[in-house]
Amino acid sequence: MTTDKNYITLTQAPQLPEPTLRRLPWYLAYLNTLRHENVDYVSSTRIATAVGVDASQIAKDLSFLNIKGKTRIGYEVAALARALHNFLGFGERHNAVIIGAGSLGSALMADRGLHPYGLDIVAGFDIDPAIIGTYICGVRVHHIDRLPELARRLDVTIAAVTVPVEAAQATGNLIMEAGIPAIWNFTPARIQVNNRTVVQNTSIYSHLAVMYNRLHSLNNPNDQQQ
Amino acid sequence: MTTDKNYITLTQAPQLPEPTLRRLPWYLAYLNTLRHENVDYVSSTRIATAVGVDASQIAKDLSFLNIKGKTRIGYEVAALARALHNFLGFGERHNAVIIGAGSLGSALMADRGLHPYGLDIVAGFDIDPAIIGTYICGVRVHHIDRLPELARRLDVTIAAVTVPVEAAQATGNLIMEAGIPAIWNFTPARIQVNNRTVVQNTSIYSHLAVMYNRLHSLNNPNDQQQ
Repeated sequence: MTTDKNYITLTQAPQLPEPTLRRLPWYLAYLNTLRHENVDYVSSTRIATAVGVDASQIAKDLSFLNIKGKTRIGYEVAALARALHNFLGFGERHNAVIIGAGSLGSALMADRGLHPYGLDIVAGFDIDPAIIGTYICGVRVHHIDRLPELARRLDVTIAAVTVPVEAAQATGNLIMEAGIPAIWNFTPARIQVNNRTVVQNTSIYSHLAVMYNRLHSLNNPNDQQQ
Repeated sequence: MTTDKNYITLTQAPQLPEPTLRRLPWYLAYLNTLRHENVDYVSSTRIATAVGVDASQIAKDLSFLNIKGKTRIGYEVAALARALHNFLGFGERHNAVIIGAGSLGSALMADRGLHPYGLDIVAGFDIDPAIIGTYICGVRVHHIDRLPELARRLDVTIAAVTVPVEAAQATGNLIMEAGIPAIWNFTPARIQVNNRTVVQNTSIYSHLAVMYNRLHSLNNPNDQQQ
């Protein structure tokens, strides 16, 4: 892992407010776009316009990284991008497993786009005999009974849950028993966990519901919000 | 489309607060779990415990559907699940295209899990000659130049954006020019749109950043939030 000594990295990072953590990747994405266009310096005003966040909020968010822009020049694009990348933990490696190698699970196992963000998918798990022992993009699918053993052996810190919704809590329980500290829950179920476990919910179906509702409002602008 | 005349459906739904819209699919997921267990009635207290949301908040959220539980019996599970399914728009069909048939885009095209939520992926688009003309799980990948023509012909209402981050805004512009009213943005870029276009951001990389930070705090409980 290469880090720049002048900047704070994830291993020194405090627990940040979630809204800040969600905005920082937007800034990083914009900075990477600027690098692609060979832009060397950028002002917080320009970042503000591009990402649709107030410039003072951006300065406040970036203050967590202990990084300041220069007067009249702004931030150095490459250095700020590197600092953000490391601060967000994208420069470290995290081993993850996928539990539920169905449609979405297989899709995640096939998505090589997670690798640049520090995530390596090292195994899949399922209960369907027809797919146990098969490989999806080079990653083997195992029987769920082997989770504790392989979690230890492969140093797994994240378990993505892509099982049917009615199996979500039982899967969460197995993950906790296997000692995996983080659950990335892709189901719309709410998984109850102990205080030694982190849960991140990514329910793309909830996002669909929001989009459908907004689409409808677009077509019926006279509707009032209740 | 089958709807129950007693309940409000999406076509009559007002623009709801986004937090409500994000919680409703959690209730639906839990109700489907109960159906799976052959449970006929459920109280708001039981839903509250299962999904980790206050019972009064649940009653308030469900009031948007014009549906009430019976005293001492609670809600009828199947009826409430059907009402939520329709209210959230999952009972209607929406044609979607995927722009950027790379790793995540192909994964989405292969994900059959979106179908039960009302989403049909009818075409993919890319600029890479090597994949134009190929099929991913039966869905053809076209050159991006054909977007306006096919959007009209296939009655497309949603365009999922899975291009590299530096191409996100240009892709958003093409989608607006093609007259597609909703953009489902999977990139970490912020796409600027006109007021006739809906954007839903689903940046799984932002979720990763939140999870990494929480994992670190778990390992270093003495860190204080700044």
